[in-house]
Amino acid sequence: MKGEGGDMSIVVVGSVAFDTIETPQSRADEVLGGSAAYFAVAASYFAPVKLVAVIGEDFPAHERDFLASRNIDLEGLTVGKGRTFRWTGRYHEDMNMRDTLDLQLNVFADFAPVLPTSYRNAPFVFLANINPSLQDQVLSQFTQPRLIACDTITHWIEGARPALEALLKKVEILIINDEEARLISGERNVVRAARKILSLGPRTLLIKRGEYGVLLFSAQSVFAVPAYPLEEVFDPTGAGDSFAGGFLGYLAESGDLSEAGQRKAIVYGSVVASFVVEDFSLRRLRTLTREDIDRRYRQFVSLTQF
Amino acid sequence: MKGEGGDMSIVVVGSVAFDTIETPQSRADEVLGGSAAYFAVAASYFAPVKLVAVIGEDFPAHERDFLASRNIDLEGLTVGKGRTFRWTGRYHEDMNMRDTLDLQLNVFADFAPVLPTSYRNAPFVFLANINPSLQDQVLSQFTQPRLIACDTITHWIEGARPALEALLKKVEILIINDEEARLISGERNVVRAARKILSLGPRTLLIKRGEYGVLLFSAQSVFAVPAYPLEEVFDPTGAGDSFAGGFLGYLAESGDLSEAGQRKAIVYGSVVASFVVEDFSLRRLRTLTREDIDRRYRQFVSLTQF
Repeated sequence: MKGEGGDMSIVVVGSVAFDTIETPQSRADEVLGGSAAYFAVAASYFAPVKLVAVIGEDFPAHERDFLASRNIDLEGLTVGKGRTFRWTGRYHEDMNMRDTLDLQLNVFADFAPVLPTSYRNAPFVFLANINPSLQDQVLSQFTQPRLIACDTITHWIEGARPALEALLKKVEILIINDEEARLISGERNVVRAARKILSLGPRTLLIKRGEYGVLLFSAQSVFAVPAYPLEEVFDPTGAGDSFAGGFLGYLAESGDLSEAGQRKAIVYGSVVASFVVEDFSLRRLRTLTREDIDRRYRQFVSLTQF
Repeated sequence: MKGEGGDMSIVVVGSVAFDTIETPQSRADEVLGGSAAYFAVAASYFAPVKLVAVIGEDFPAHERDFLASRNIDLEGLTVGKGRTFRWTGRYHEDMNMRDTLDLQLNVFADFAPVLPTSYRNAPFVFLANINPSLQDQVLSQFTQPRLIACDTITHWIEGARPALEALLKKVEILIINDEEARLISGERNVVRAARKILSLGPRTLLIKRGEYGVLLFSAQSVFAVPAYPLEEVFDPTGAGDSFAGGFLGYLAESGDLSEAGQRKAIVYGSVVASFVVEDFSLRRLRTLTREDIDRRYRQFVSLTQF
């Protein structure tokens, strides 16, 4: 175990899945996905990641090897009796919209995450989208996390509001999209929505707006960054989780949790997400290097500076 | 007449109208509007503006006085026989969408702009949204403009394509919104749309995305700036024309037409537009000062820097 000062590891709790994805141009069958998988691989470019998720007996060794090759600690990746979580979705002509065609929870239905002892004093925690009661239960297993961030989705905002509100009181950074922000706050205007959400607990709110970029809101300030303009968005799946992975990864690597540090981290998150959408699933990250990331970060600077 | 080197005046050709506007929250009847009016007042914070438009016999002296009080040259503002152009529109709950409820061209139906002699050697030209044949005809009356920018709308893209394409070959900067960019190019992706439009003639393309900001495309580079996040958008009417006014106004004032200069000008345009939408019509600009603009420009810097 690393010493208190030097440990910059991130524990992510969420799903690992096989996705079947249809876009207007193409299709991919049973490819690696899930919020925790996207987050873990994205964050692994910056800091050590420990993964808490459940997979089925059908999960192939080569995918486990891929995660391990990214230096992701898999002690918390348990194998349940049955098949891995499956999701099938179809994107509209407008790739900002998608329909879920099929959802098979499989082993994920009984997911009750227990942290391995070696994970409990990790300084950085990301609670990817799962039932907020489970997010809360996992959170209580950490000894003294330095930074806790979480995500949620429409399903839980509508169906598990009390548990979500209880969780938000314990979370520093909430990372959601604009539709979720409207739903939590009941406000259409993004600035008013943000003020309401901050009053529920988080010190920082990040609102992901897809091709329009990301907004940061805190009590002191607002930060806005556009998305990297791409000639083609091949598959938007996992962009939000990859953004979160790049964001928390950079925070862990730099150790700079100030707002200036968070702003840079948002740009790193945006960079990683911009690569992820260039191909199906996590394919682009199988060849992506840290140098590629740093090069596009510099392009982001010239994209936005005036 | 100013000397060749010192003249930084901008001629704008377009409409002056009375608008009746319904928003989900409120309503205004017969308030000053029109593309050239918004542009002229916005640009007047930065440079001398000369207005080419037609009004009816019903145009009140106090509105003419307001324009004159902004140092806008009104020699090109002719009075036609009949009533001033009227537009009535209603915004949806989502203020990015609106319906035209009524349109009365009145004196604008026979608008055939003729430049006063004193306007012909103006260095900066903005052709606001009118029939592209008229835009072209006005353009031919300038002796040697330094910079020509124009706007257009869906109506002309669909109904006057050949005239529009002929015009685009003569224009340096095209300023349109994302829907118009998709329609001109036939491309949904904004980067591919921009490439196609640049191939039609303009050296620079500005794409306005409402609450999501503005994109600049040129052969060399891309620049993206978010919109200023407002707690309330009271009336979006004229935001695009005010953006163009602030943009060209700053270019004329600074004389810096480099891409760095254009980037700053885009931020100034965004600042002016962010004030315009805070009230109906041009009301906010009746009290706005240059100091207010410069203050919000600095807020834009802290909104976007990382």
